[in-house]
Amino acid sequence: MCLTLEIVVGAAVEGKLKADFQSFVNVDSLSGRLNKSAASHASPTTMFPYCARNFTLHRRTLLRPPLSLHHPRKRCSPPSGGQQDQVVSFLQLCVDSHYISPGQRNIELFQQGNSCSYGPLGMELKRNLLSQWWHSLSSSPAQVFGINTINCSEDNAASGQGRFRVVEPKDFEDVFKQEQLSKEKVIQKVRELLQRSSSLRASLFQGALEEFVTVMELVNRRLPFGLAETGLCFQPSRGSGCPAEVTQTSLVWFCSPRTSSQWLHHWTRQRLKWWRKFALSPSDFSSTEVAEEELEEPASHGVRILYRFPWGQEPLETLWMRGNSELLQMHKGVRSKLQSRGGRKSIPHVISVSGNVDRGMMAFLSNSLQQHKKDGSKQKLQQRKVLKLHPVLAPVKVALEIGRGATVELRQVCEGLALELLEAEISVWPGYLKTQPTSMEQLTARYDEMGVLFTVVTSENTLESGLLQVRSRDTAIKETMHISEIKKFLLRYVSAADNS
Amino acid sequence: MCLTLEIVVGAAVEGKLKADFQSFVNVDSLSGRLNKSAASHASPTTMFPYCARNFTLHRRTLLRPPLSLHHPRKRCSPPSGGQQDQVVSFLQLCVDSHYISPGQRNIELFQQGNSCSYGPLGMELKRNLLSQWWHSLSSSPAQVFGINTINCSEDNAASGQGRFRVVEPKDFEDVFKQEQLSKEKVIQKVRELLQRSSSLRASLFQGALEEFVTVMELVNRRLPFGLAETGLCFQPSRGSGCPAEVTQTSLVWFCSPRTSSQWLHHWTRQRLKWWRKFALSPSDFSSTEVAEEELEEPASHGVRILYRFPWGQEPLETLWMRGNSELLQMHKGVRSKLQSRGGRKSIPHVISVSGNVDRGMMAFLSNSLQQHKKDGSKQKLQQRKVLKLHPVLAPVKVALEIGRGATVELRQVCEGLALELLEAEISVWPGYLKTQPTSMEQLTARYDEMGVLFTVVTSENTLESGLLQVRSRDTAIKETMHISEIKKFLLRYVSAADNS
Repeated sequence: MCLTLEIVVGAAVEGKLKADFQSFVNVDSLSGRLNKSAASHASPTTMFPYCARNFTLHRRTLLRPPLSLHHPRKRCSPPSGGQQDQVVSFLQLCVDSHYISPGQRNIELFQQGNSCSYGPLGMELKRNLLSQWWHSLSSSPAQVFGINTINCSEDNAASGQGRFRVVEPKDFEDVFKQEQLSKEKVIQKVRELLQRSSSLRASLFQGALEEFVTVMELVNRRLPFGLAETGLCFQPSRGSGCPAEVTQTSLVWFCSPRTSSQWLHHWTRQRLKWWRKFALSPSDFSSTEVAEEELEEPASHGVRILYRFPWGQEPLETLWMRGNSELLQMHKGVRSKLQSRGGRKSIPHVISVSGNVDRGMMAFLSNSLQQHKKDGSKQKLQQRKVLKLHPVLAPVKVALEIGRGATVELRQVCEGLALELLEAEISVWPGYLKTQPTSMEQLTARYDEMGVLFTVVTSENTLESGLLQVRSRDTAIKETMHISEIKKFLLRYVSAADNS
Repeated sequence: MCLTLEIVVGAAVEGKLKADFQSFVNVDSLSGRLNKSAASHASPTTMFPYCARNFTLHRRTLLRPPLSLHHPRKRCSPPSGGQQDQVVSFLQLCVDSHYISPGQRNIELFQQGNSCSYGPLGMELKRNLLSQWWHSLSSSPAQVFGINTINCSEDNAASGQGRFRVVEPKDFEDVFKQEQLSKEKVIQKVRELLQRSSSLRASLFQGALEEFVTVMELVNRRLPFGLAETGLCFQPSRGSGCPAEVTQTSLVWFCSPRTSSQWLHHWTRQRLKWWRKFALSPSDFSSTEVAEEELEEPASHGVRILYRFPWGQEPLETLWMRGNSELLQMHKGVRSKLQSRGGRKSIPHVISVSGNVDRGMMAFLSNSLQQHKKDGSKQKLQQRKVLKLHPVLAPVKVALEIGRGATVELRQVCEGLALELLEAEISVWPGYLKTQPTSMEQLTARYDEMGVLFTVVTSENTLESGLLQVRSRDTAIKETMHISEIKKFLLRYVSAADNS
């Protein structure tokens, strides 16, 4: 690896985090799975202090552009040299396995927890994650309604400072053309244009507040209920002038004032359980109270759900107990419409739960990467990397391959099987289409890196008896199975993993 | 209805379109369904001329703000007075049934085919539509990869005129603060800021072109293949300064030059078939060649898929045969990376297929609305409206209600059943939660307007024998069924409709 990274740490280095990276690599899958239920019942407060922001990594490039690790965070242990290599190789794996698109800028965006250009596997992972998030809310006994609000808002009174505005350059040119205007007039007109322009949302919260009154009528003014949405938000980015795009999940929960702290607790538990459900090593996900000095107005309490990345902990989701001031502010003059039914006629209190899907994807990718060293070898090339993504998240459930035998006929068999599986919404990797011969060992190593759950190999035997070989990513065991059983087997496997 | 609309038609009125609205209301569902397969094999070119743009509807309001019908389109028959009422009542139905959020501006956005604030049912409809779109591509024998690209681009060389820029007002204020600057300098600095700012995408096309080289390697440089994406785009809007947000679907197809016109034909047929699959009256969807004078550079051919709204035809999806100039332009200097494998080593030709999900939703809502007049009554109130959305698109599959019997116990039964159905990803409307007594007739009328597939009523009988009543939206027939059979029945019903 022709790459050196010089690390400048801006804040204190905390020794306890030094050993953390050990759990990132060489995690024992089995014990991870066994500990899962225990871990999800463990205390939600983390053992490690929340460390984010304010440390910077300066980098120096030798020979080729580095995979940047630009993270302005505080109180985090910087990765050591070996860890640094691991981080770089993890990011490279994400590129090579078609999770994210290549390119220095793109990898930086990904590592900063922003939306980046995702390749075919990244796109499927994102789809699966969003769909699991929605399913977990819609199938919970809590009453949650989905909404879909617009991004640009014309209401600039509500927009805070630092928010991005959308303008058309030609409007400015129209002003500049007017030669008689004085400098002051030009400035005034430019200001007016900016004032009139619409702002891009930084979170989904305002949208949900706007919808509150409508849905309040729908539920017949009975509390509690929630409004759920996923969507693109634009936030200030570090360094670049381009806004950072983030795909957010948002649940805004409306409840009676006296139950709001119970609900905060409830949703913290639920969300942490959700993150841990898909983790190989659930203890890397934790929750922690936001310190009083970090509380954002008007929140009176806050909880962060964190993931322990090799470079320190970063927040995946944040819960705020926000009282009702924002609701009253937005719906001024219609106080009666905000009141809940029943004796107290109280104005609901609001809890916001907003997550970062992009960083969540990175957390699951990082969490599921296992590296097995082959015995007796110290060369890096001999390391076997397996991306053990949870079966419901794995973007590709099965890769179809052709072994020995009549290629034309076997390709037809694969095509038929692929269509059958795709119809059942089982994602297929069409390995049978490639034209260059590759050894089966290389192939399975490749699929393990991509996190493909099963590799199905058709061969002469398949044409004769309908039997094919099914290799599991997680156990590396090969089984023989009849072609007619594959679909059922895969559906059962994924659904069992979902319900476990 | 206290609303008058004065219509000024900017272009010739074509008589043939006058009868079209008849098919919008009172469509015979059965014959519609029966004609479906015939219609989908019919010639894809429409019998009606493509009419869009350039006619304006001026409106005059009496007593209450109108539901706007502002549509600058050409050669369209404007809706007559009766049709106008129908349009207004259709839009109101979308609001009342929780498809879109209330508010004049929001309804306008919706009718213009832009993203608007969607209510719980609209959000589910959008989810279902996007998921069906993705399923139809991923399960087709054609090789299609999903991607997910970012919205803001820093590459301003590629951005055309009229595109929106994202700016931070404080950067401008920093310039204005510098008092020593002359007017010319201020203008220059503002221009520079605009120049450096990033642009919001107007379509998903550029993103797919950027990903081309990576995926070309992935498929081992074998053509054809496609890149599919859905996402938010920002387009110039009519009237308002706010950009219009549109959720687009995009398939960019790369094929050898000599097959590109066949592929254009193939995708036109496939896409039209897809739209018609979910239609109650498939013949309202049609395709038409784009006239030569309307072709956008560098396209040599174009096809539009249109829907016949009560106010005229509007495009839902557009296919362009674009040659390879844009590909060569974007990947200058890496010509060898663009070449396909095989003898000819040709640079692929590009076909773009981009659809408007928001207008698609409106088309399906409009298409599925049936109005039945009750015999002997001429009052509007006596009309029964049913939103016969296709079962796979219907946002709510089942509403759970409590009939006569012990409310507390029945509510528990409903809660248990709801959880079971939601677990199986069958969307449920929790009618059992409401507190005001409503007659069963009013309820089913309400659910019909919402397009709820089945209404399940629990009663005393359920507690005794486990039997409940299931009413179908489409047939209005009530059946008795055992509670243990409901889930299977619904799953089978939806999947049968999907495969029919």
